[in-house]
Amino acid sequence: MITSTSNRQIKHLMQLQKKAKARYEQRVFVVEGSKMCFEAPREWVKKIYVSQSFLEGGRWAQKLQDYNFEILSDAVFQSVSDTSTPQGILAVVAMPDYTLGQLTSQKNPHLLLLESIQDPGNLGTMVRTGEGAGVSGIIMNHTTVDMFHPKVIRSNMGSIYRVPFVIVKDLTAAVVLLKEKGVTVYAAHLKGSMSYDMPDYRKPTAFLVGNEGNGLTNALADMADAYIRIPMEGRVESLNAAVAATLLLYEVNRQRR
Amino acid sequence: MITSTSNRQIKHLMQLQKKAKARYEQRVFVVEGSKMCFEAPREWVKKIYVSQSFLEGGRWAQKLQDYNFEILSDAVFQSVSDTSTPQGILAVVAMPDYTLGQLTSQKNPHLLLLESIQDPGNLGTMVRTGEGAGVSGIIMNHTTVDMFHPKVIRSNMGSIYRVPFVIVKDLTAAVVLLKEKGVTVYAAHLKGSMSYDMPDYRKPTAFLVGNEGNGLTNALADMADAYIRIPMEGRVESLNAAVAATLLLYEVNRQRR
Repeated sequence: MITSTSNRQIKHLMQLQKKAKARYEQRVFVVEGSKMCFEAPREWVKKIYVSQSFLEGGRWAQKLQDYNFEILSDAVFQSVSDTSTPQGILAVVAMPDYTLGQLTSQKNPHLLLLESIQDPGNLGTMVRTGEGAGVSGIIMNHTTVDMFHPKVIRSNMGSIYRVPFVIVKDLTAAVVLLKEKGVTVYAAHLKGSMSYDMPDYRKPTAFLVGNEGNGLTNALADMADAYIRIPMEGRVESLNAAVAATLLLYEVNRQRR
Repeated sequence: MITSTSNRQIKHLMQLQKKAKARYEQRVFVVEGSKMCFEAPREWVKKIYVSQSFLEGGRWAQKLQDYNFEILSDAVFQSVSDTSTPQGILAVVAMPDYTLGQLTSQKNPHLLLLESIQDPGNLGTMVRTGEGAGVSGIIMNHTTVDMFHPKVIRSNMGSIYRVPFVIVKDLTAAVVLLKEKGVTVYAAHLKGSMSYDMPDYRKPTAFLVGNEGNGLTNALADMADAYIRIPMEGRVESLNAAVAATLLLYEVNRQRR
């Protein structure tokens, strides 16, 4: 049992929790809670860490035998957990490795393209809602909040294991590629004149959704095939980015159902 | 200029920021930022507080003459602000006083009924999205997070001034009243067999949305005229409460447009 926070593995876990750089250097991330640990594809899971109390609880003792696992004292576990009341189990998981080619070569793509989303809760919610709506993949630029940030992991509820995604340096290049492949790219934009429920989304479709405060950059919005707009009553000037994405993704779901 | 945090008004502001009880005893709440302060209906605003730097910025000096206002040293302003980088202006605003009778007597109601929503960001987002979708009012039970909590205020972006809402002790009584008035009450429920986009929402409509973790209580769900369900692909078991409300409210908007 590890009882000291100066243990090498503990320091390593703390780095992974706090620093995106450490995560990408080793191409692993941390998930917490039994659901997130055991829902991960088995071959993604490198190692599991449990607290003494969790292990003594006994419920998962059998299941843990299938994994490489380590026991931490409760105090040490608390120090590596990102939550204030940890369940007592976390896993180090390998990052998936999708390619842009995979995402753009699917049959009848339904894609979400994210530019510089900043709020971890928004990104996590979009991944979860995306899975619910049947999105075929998410493409985001590298100035979007890190997909492997503990808060993003927490709010996507395991969808990160199932929704293919790619982080790219340059979204404009991805849009060019999508257009070459015959995908119609729509920009959610306040200047749009066409309501979001007008286009035919039964064809290959991608949506560009921009940063919470500033929306899409002009450079990117200009590349879209069409601007679409979500009608708003009252004096509402814009909707939350995750709310806007929800309406777009589920309109595709509705049309394809 | 107030330069001490032991000033009576400053202590009062701190109480209002932190304690729902203090807000309800005096029937006032606090909003921050120039947009939220000056967008409030003029007769709701009791008093404005500005930091010295904000006042010296000069931009709003003229506008402030219409209000009862007080100047705080920057340090004192920081101590009463709920944000880490305050703009330097906040207002004490009277709570609006809608009645259940008003909300249920409107022409062709489109209502959102919330049971024990806990996340301030979710509630704020639902109010903002509700205004965008043209909701005619929101009814919530008193175990829902406080509508006047600083985080709820921040995330609704001023919609609190325009969307009528009532906080009730007993949602079941409100549902009885709605049904008497001819409003069809739908429960968003995982047991629902009817897709949410099937009913005719051009008639008087209300949606019951439950707590993030537990959904609707059986007692309340049982009172609904019908259960509706949002289709979910993949292995998603439920959607975020604000995401679910978004889809329901905008489906009404789509049908009534």
